[in-house]
Amino acid sequence: MAEQKQINVALIGSKFMGRAHSNAYLKAPRFFDLPVEPVMHTIAARNREEVERFAKRWGWINASDDWKKVVADEAIDLVDIGVPNHMHREMAIAALEAGRHVACEKPLADTLDSAREMVAAAKKASGQKTFVWYNYRRCPALTLAHQLVKQGKLGRIYHVRGFYLQDWAGPDVPLLWRFQGDVAGSGSLGDLCAHSIDAARFVTGEEITEVSGAVMETFIKERKVIAGSAGGEISGSGAATAEQTAPSTVDDSSLFLARFSGGAVASFEATRLSTGDKNGNRIEVHGEKGAVRFDFERMAELQWYDATIEPAVQGWTTINVSNAGAGHPYAEAWWPTAHTIGYEHGFINQAADICRALGGEQPVAPLPDFEDAYQTQRVLAAVVESAKNRCPVSLDQIK
Amino acid sequence: MAEQKQINVALIGSKFMGRAHSNAYLKAPRFFDLPVEPVMHTIAARNREEVERFAKRWGWINASDDWKKVVADEAIDLVDIGVPNHMHREMAIAALEAGRHVACEKPLADTLDSAREMVAAAKKASGQKTFVWYNYRRCPALTLAHQLVKQGKLGRIYHVRGFYLQDWAGPDVPLLWRFQGDVAGSGSLGDLCAHSIDAARFVTGEEITEVSGAVMETFIKERKVIAGSAGGEISGSGAATAEQTAPSTVDDSSLFLARFSGGAVASFEATRLSTGDKNGNRIEVHGEKGAVRFDFERMAELQWYDATIEPAVQGWTTINVSNAGAGHPYAEAWWPTAHTIGYEHGFINQAADICRALGGEQPVAPLPDFEDAYQTQRVLAAVVESAKNRCPVSLDQIK
Amino acid sequence: MAEQKQINVALIGSKFMGRAHSNAYLKAPRFFDLPVEPVMHTIAARNREEVERFAKRWGWINASDDWKKVVADEAIDLVDIGVPNHMHREMAIAALEAGRHVACEKPLADTLDSAREMVAAAKKASGQKTFVWYNYRRCPALTLAHQLVKQGKLGRIYHVRGFYLQDWAGPDVPLLWRFQGDVAGSGSLGDLCAHSIDAARFVTGEEITEVSGAVMETFIKERKVIAGSAGGEISGSGAATAEQTAPSTVDDSSLFLARFSGGAVASFEATRLSTGDKNGNRIEVHGEKGAVRFDFERMAELQWYDATIEPAVQGWTTINVSNAGAGHPYAEAWWPTAHTIGYEHGFINQAADICRALGGEQPVAPLPDFEDAYQTQRVLAAVVESAKNRCPVSLDQIK
Amino acid sequence: MAEQKQINVALIGSKFMGRAHSNAYLKAPRFFDLPVEPVMHTIAARNREEVERFAKRWGWINASDDWKKVVADEAIDLVDIGVPNHMHREMAIAALEAGRHVACEKPLADTLDSAREMVAAAKKASGQKTFVWYNYRRCPALTLAHQLVKQGKLGRIYHVRGFYLQDWAGPDVPLLWRFQGDVAGSGSLGDLCAHSIDAARFVTGEEITEVSGAVMETFIKERKVIAGSAGGEISGSGAATAEQTAPSTVDDSSLFLARFSGGAVASFEATRLSTGDKNGNRIEVHGEKGAVRFDFERMAELQWYDATIEPAVQGWTTINVSNAGAGHPYAEAWWPTAHTIGYEHGFINQAADICRALGGEQPVAPLPDFEDAYQTQRVLAAVVESAKNRCPVSLDQIK
Repeated sequence: MAEQKQINVALIGSKFMGRAHSNAYLKAPRFFDLPVEPVMHTIAARNREEVERFAKRWGWINASDDWKKVVADEAIDLVDIGVPNHMHREMAIAALEAGRHVACEKPLADTLDSAREMVAAAKKASGQKTFVWYNYRRCPALTLAHQLVKQGKLGRIYHVRGFYLQDWAGPDVPLLWRFQGDVAGSGSLGDLCAHSIDAARFVTGEEITEVSGAVMETFIKERKVIAGSAGGEISGSGAATAEQTAPSTVDDSSLFLARFSGGAVASFEATRLSTGDKNGNRIEVHGEKGAVRFDFERMAELQWYDATIEPAVQGWTTINVSNAGAGHPYAEAWWPTAHTIGYEHGFINQAADICRALGGEQPVAPLPDFEDAYQTQRVLAAVVESAKNRCPVSLDQIK
Repeated sequence: MAEQKQINVALIGSKFMGRAHSNAYLKAPRFFDLPVEPVMHTIAARNREEVERFAKRWGWINASDDWKKVVADEAIDLVDIGVPNHMHREMAIAALEAGRHVACEKPLADTLDSAREMVAAAKKASGQKTFVWYNYRRCPALTLAHQLVKQGKLGRIYHVRGFYLQDWAGPDVPLLWRFQGDVAGSGSLGDLCAHSIDAARFVTGEEITEVSGAVMETFIKERKVIAGSAGGEISGSGAATAEQTAPSTVDDSSLFLARFSGGAVASFEATRLSTGDKNGNRIEVHGEKGAVRFDFERMAELQWYDATIEPAVQGWTTINVSNAGAGHPYAEAWWPTAHTIGYEHGFINQAADICRALGGEQPVAPLPDFEDAYQTQRVLAAVVESAKNRCPVSLDQIK
Repeated sequence: MAEQKQINVALIGSKFMGRAHSNAYLKAPRFFDLPVEPVMHTIAARNREEVERFAKRWGWINASDDWKKVVADEAIDLVDIGVPNHMHREMAIAALEAGRHVACEKPLADTLDSAREMVAAAKKASGQKTFVWYNYRRCPALTLAHQLVKQGKLGRIYHVRGFYLQDWAGPDVPLLWRFQGDVAGSGSLGDLCAHSIDAARFVTGEEITEVSGAVMETFIKERKVIAGSAGGEISGSGAATAEQTAPSTVDDSSLFLARFSGGAVASFEATRLSTGDKNGNRIEVHGEKGAVRFDFERMAELQWYDATIEPAVQGWTTINVSNAGAGHPYAEAWWPTAHTIGYEHGFINQAADICRALGGEQPVAPLPDFEDAYQTQRVLAAVVESAKNRCPVSLDQIK
Repeated sequence: MAEQKQINVALIGSKFMGRAHSNAYLKAPRFFDLPVEPVMHTIAARNREEVERFAKRWGWINASDDWKKVVADEAIDLVDIGVPNHMHREMAIAALEAGRHVACEKPLADTLDSAREMVAAAKKASGQKTFVWYNYRRCPALTLAHQLVKQGKLGRIYHVRGFYLQDWAGPDVPLLWRFQGDVAGSGSLGDLCAHSIDAARFVTGEEITEVSGAVMETFIKERKVIAGSAGGEISGSGAATAEQTAPSTVDDSSLFLARFSGGAVASFEATRLSTGDKNGNRIEVHGEKGAVRFDFERMAELQWYDATIEPAVQGWTTINVSNAGAGHPYAEAWWPTAHTIGYEHGFINQAADICRALGGEQPVAPLPDFEDAYQTQRVLAAVVESAKNRCPVSLDQIK
């Protein structure tokens, strides 16, 4: 680690996640009192001119178009990977072998094989830590859900529902990288459902033991090709040229049924074609003694049902999870109660927790490492197999 | 009282309230176990043909176009008045003098003088009971609010808000009786705000001691005259003829500030021009230890905030007030939990409570009699005076 | 049909559904102008004393403890079956053979074989009509959803979600008939999920072509036996004796994935153990041009998303489906806008539509007959097979 | 202006608003493409040690405990005042006289006299601009409300409601500066209601012409004194010593009725004792053709009612105002749709608009200058006078 309570960060990627992570490193030390301070040392991306502009804008000290050099640079303490999924494996392993801590965007990898190699590399590493950016764990309402379950307030869990509903991928959207299987690994499954699986594991504290049935569907089978580009971002308006089209090779929608280690049954659905739902990352967990509900579209709010209190006043309680005085997670760093934080704060909170972990302190809630994220990856693989073979798949079969 | 646990009811009025009350008498004994059974003895209304059709449809045994004969009929136990406000006084006093119990639609009267006479007549009566149809008291969510306050769960009350927001009275609506001051007494004030005042008094258990400021406004000053008619109902489409217009002589909107006997400050508003709000009968009461919120547009739900529990899980709890097992008011008579009841059930629940009162049992919640409704009428008078004289009005000034 | 625009109804069953149907026949002709009037001719139930009390309370002219005699009575026009599922077949066929119209509670039968026989009997009948009480079709918000889809406002449908979530069946609830497979046929599946399947078919106008995977679970495997009783109702408090228990032989929860004839993918879930959800009959349908969402816990409201309007003001619109002036289904019979109706009105509206159908008029929305309800029954059978054999089941396989 | 498209900012104040403004200057140039870049030149505050720590944490180049020197420094382009209200006047006038642009926290001043002097100073200034931090104007949902009204979508406005409801000021909260009249000027009125008045003026585009009645109340008349301190922030836990108390000299709650220049009637309420409401900054505006509703507790959402569309689908539409593709205000700078922003982004958006204004570009929505904020101040003064004299106050009387 760099001298005296600083860690030098190298970030690879300057698109959507590049911005989200840069903002996280910029802000975490200003709002949190942390045992180590993240230094925005180097940003790496393919395009030289673009990466330099990005570095200037965000305050990265150095810019590079050669990620291999960057991860090999002894000055770097933490390599942060914020690029499409098919590149995670190579970068992460190189960084680990070079002795760096590694933070990687989710899902862990494009394939289960890649993910397994990454876990192996992490195990071989000598003392470095790994992190995966399942950012929603640090959305305070979801963190509180995790805490309530952990305190035993739900009792035996019967039902889990994990939906991640978006609607941006109508027939007019061109063939972004997110629709290209060789780049993205999968579509709605890895992009969205991975978040739901991680969130369900995080909140319940249980593992999925079986994918009991699955459906994956590509509704829009052909999309317009974007001229001279490997594609942009969700909100990007990469213009398509003429009428040239090519196949979308990922799933627009993924649905599956599952069982959890504690006996609960579960329903999951991820889709980019749920008209009207913009970022509907919803999770519902129902136990014998209580239940929680969350929808990211109202991210400040956790809905909590306490089945143990006086029956006449039982109901769904909408908790605005932003009250430092009430001990709400992360609230002490931010604004007064109900002076709400937003999407980006999940990343900032995670950057803070990464700094805590690297500084020997406890994060507010468990940080997923490669091993942990690999469990989610196994479920993704089981879903693909279940959808393909049209049968239940036990997680025991997925090594 | 009619022999052996029956009471013969005579209802005057066959329009909106005529239907609501007929339905109430029809259903109450089927859903509730009551000490007396209401017999639908006689319906009275102006138009002979219409009242006979109405009697047939609703199962009234007799029909009459002479209300004076009806109230004088010794067979009648309870006279129920469901006609426009300017006729309440004469009918109620005649019925009381004839020895009948009287149930009267709200507001008690068109003027404070009329109301005072009615109270006097009720006091003179020998043992008869009076009732006023402030039906929302028996909407279970509002009844529960009353109960929670009574149990001391709110502590000292700081704030009361009573809004009744509708939007049906745009410039195209013709000159119904509800826009005629000589028939209706007032517009939004008596029609809607009276409900809010009663609800606030009912829930808080306190009285309004001062109207601190008031505004009454007629936005639509001229309306089309309806051909050959004294007007219809809210939902009626009484067609206007040609372009003949006449002045609307009632308030479209009424707003006032107030103080309660326990020290709370309050804000009231009633309007027929709150575009988008259809039947937004809302009340909010905030105390030192808790708070309740209600909006009739989601009538099954009471929102309850308990400021005394573990801070981390404090929030607004949405109680679906329909759970017999939880002791929710009136729920034992109706359907399983969350198999919701509707607007009409406030009337049915009140008919049941009237039967209980007449049979010597306790109603589920206090039934307003003339004296009680007169307190609301005094507030209405204070609002009119405050709006007119543009100054605060102490309720002590309103006798 | 009885002379002169009346139909004599015989109702079998005096429990939960007995009340709901009695109330429907009582009220429909008072609120609707109908081509035929239902006469409450005979109520039949097992217990002589109980059925007589019931008849008196509800105004049934005759009471009987012999349903066979009742259906054979030539005075009867319509036999209405409101008893547990395992008795539907015998009663319906007897009634059809006797020449009666038949209205039957849902699901159509306890088994697919029974259902098939009932359809055959209906086909053989000479001109009689059959009806099945999928009452939620006549909840105005759901009727409007049906109408919007029919008008083409959703375009190609991508996603359907049908959840029916209740929580009344915790471990302390005794072995009611609803937990006895030989009486109920199934648990959450026939009781709740049948409603969701019918609603999805009704709203989309499409058929389910495949059950892609299914899970059925009995979480509470043993329940206390109720002393001297075949069980009560949901809200019943049939006391259990001592500690004697017996196995629950029905599913507490049922989940399945499906495909629709138009290509949509779907997720269904029904459960009695979704803590906090009281009567969460939810349906979501997402199409290329718009979407609808419904939750019975806010039954007055349909949520509607129009993806074709000016993007800046797109969002979920909460329609209070109660506006007669706006042409909302059934609203002209009821109260002013947002003077909400309730659960029971689905039955009343259906009774009115049955009278219309019997009087030669069009119902407001399609009434399910035995043939229609049989399609839902086939899906139920496919779910059972899919859950048992742990594989997808094409509806082609289910005859 | 500092050379080449940079402006040097000096911020006075390092508490709640010091953080909010620092964060705004830090982030605005990273997310927006701006014609001028704000340079975080100097932070000034009373306590030398504290201000230096603050400067280091937030990246201010210089720190000072002498605000007079700072505003006199020729290197400074913009002086930003983020201290309690009673200091605004002196600082703002000094800064204007020194030739600086000035941004000042709201409300403009502690008294109307002070505010008037500030406006005069701004008028005398040679070309400098002034800004007031009514940050909620730049909450995108509220900005959209402003735009919809401006486009004529509401038509004639009938009703305005402006509530700002918090609950943090119970009897246990000690005597912070916010309860000291000589420091704060007022309590809920200047702190909260000022926001509502500004928001109502901003959204409607109209001015308040009369305060028709007002009530101001101090429920908690004595509070514990904080040892050795002038008080902290809302979320501060400045410990009270022993049992020493002193009077609270500000209003806990303020309510008033008003009229707008276009004829609308209005109701305003601000309070710190609305148990259950954490930051309920709500505004409702109802016009002849449509209506808008906003509650900051769900800050991403604007509720919009369009009374001109097909009646069957009219309802409140919940717009998630975060869609760059739909042209939502400020969305192009931030995250994908429904990847929500928070409270702090109002400040960041305003910092961006200030840079635009200083760079000769148009802000996304009108920025309040001293003259504009003075109109809000006049209303505050009218409320105080109305509450004191217990009579309506025409704004014509308030110069």
